Amino acid sequence: MVADKPRRRIIAVGSGKGGVGKSTVSANLAIALARAGRKVGLVDADIYGPSQPRLMGSEGIKPTAQGDKLIPVPNQWGVPLLSMGQLIEPDKAIAWRGPMAGNALGQLIDADWGDAEVLVVDLPPGTGDVQLTMLQRYKPAGAVIVSTPQDLALIDARRAIQLFEVGQVPVIGMIENMAGYVCPHCGEVSDPFGTGGAEAAARSLDLPFLGRIPLELSIRQASDAGTPPAAGEGPAADVFAALARQVSAWLDNH
Amino acid sequence: MVADKPRRRIIAVGSGKGGVGKSTVSANLAIALARAGRKVGLVDADIYGPSQPRLMGSEGIKPTAQGDKLIPVPNQWGVPLLSMGQLIEPDKAIAWRGPMAGNALGQLIDADWGDAEVLVVDLPPGTGDVQLTMLQRYKPAGAVIVSTPQDLALIDARRAIQLFEVGQVPVIGMIENMAGYVCPHCGEVSDPFGTGGAEAAARSLDLPFLGRIPLELSIRQASDAGTPPAAGEGPAADVFAALARQVSAWLDNH
Repeated sequence: MVADKPRRRIIAVGSGKGGVGKSTVSANLAIALARAGRKVGLVDADIYGPSQPRLMGSEGIKPTAQGDKLIPVPNQWGVPLLSMGQLIEPDKAIAWRGPMAGNALGQLIDADWGDAEVLVVDLPPGTGDVQLTMLQRYKPAGAVIVSTPQDLALIDARRAIQLFEVGQVPVIGMIENMAGYVCPHCGEVSDPFGTGGAEAAARSLDLPFLGRIPLELSIRQASDAGTPPAAGEGPAADVFAALARQVSAWLDNH
Repeated sequence: MVADKPRRRIIAVGSGKGGVGKSTVSANLAIALARAGRKVGLVDADIYGPSQPRLMGSEGIKPTAQGDKLIPVPNQWGVPLLSMGQLIEPDKAIAWRGPMAGNALGQLIDADWGDAEVLVVDLPPGTGDVQLTMLQRYKPAGAVIVSTPQDLALIDARRAIQLFEVGQVPVIGMIENMAGYVCPHCGEVSDPFGTGGAEAAARSLDLPFLGRIPLELSIRQASDAGTPPAAGEGPAADVFAALARQVSAWLDNH
């Protein structure tokens, strides 16, 4: 008799363009999935700009290893994390060519993830070595695409979506970040990065639109402080809970 | 008698993190340098997410070639441009591993730049193949680092600076982008991404601080519309003119 191998699926969070909030969405999606009862691990595959140790409030904690496998770093949010940022000193450039980046990715994904049924993978921007290695060696079950409403970000998002299509990875949907900024002085909403662009792009590409995350001071401050909003209560937590419900339903149906 | 080879110098614009406005700074710095009388070319080295054809209002125009050299695409701003975005169809992923990205960079930089004395190079985010190829084969005379005031962006900026230091490329200075957002309803200023972080980081790293670019609807709209603010008049143009003056003075002294 052979023990069943747990079915562990990868949800890739990608964007094409950097700085659109992909890491924030990854961290908070993982936490919201865990709150909804899923066993989740978080992989920070942004080799050159790892943000997850800061976002998850676990900077400076290095993973241990058992044999040749890394042990993900646990945290109070119930989402074990592995990130290149845990292995490299801060302020040091991670000056690696593609093959090294691909190997590093392998170390993170082939770690001892225990009973995790879902790995949320925070991809670097672009469509280069890490993305290609993911598609070829660690094919995601599905992908979530993050974009701001800005034209410039949507151009790159389309390229990222096209890469997943070529790699036959279903796109679960698009999420719009940095839409709507509430002025802390007058309370009125304006749109420094425009609004609705990602929803329109999702429609034109026939992809589900997963929701809209406002450009909120509180989200940025919580992120910088390592207290992810999805772990708290309030409107920001609700946005990520709604995203997690959609991803969870997708997982149930695929 | 041998003709003098023109002394052409590269100014690299880097950031570590994506989405901080590196491409916007590159385009507008190049235009402001040209307005100040420099002969300037612009290289969009962001292989996976080329934004310059859109920013410079020259989408859809392909460069010609003479022999094995590309001819940069001229524009009304007097800053000839080469970008991977001119060579690849929109909506198609540029799914290249590092060596191909390095070769593409070579094609852009070894093009027929005519009498350009300065090439402004818009680097991709990160510290990977393109950055390493730049340092090894096309060493910049100096680098400008763009960051937002957000902690997460500054962490990556420090990594980028460290790579330039290791590569013995002098950092001309740091510029802070997306600092201060003027509410279009009440006119009050607030800071969705914080404020002053890049200036403090520059001070702590003993680097010149080159200025602050506000998060302005007009800059985003002009960028999306291909009418770079540096080519116009008004406060946004003044910000980039001041940046160009500092870079120009640095070039005169180095």
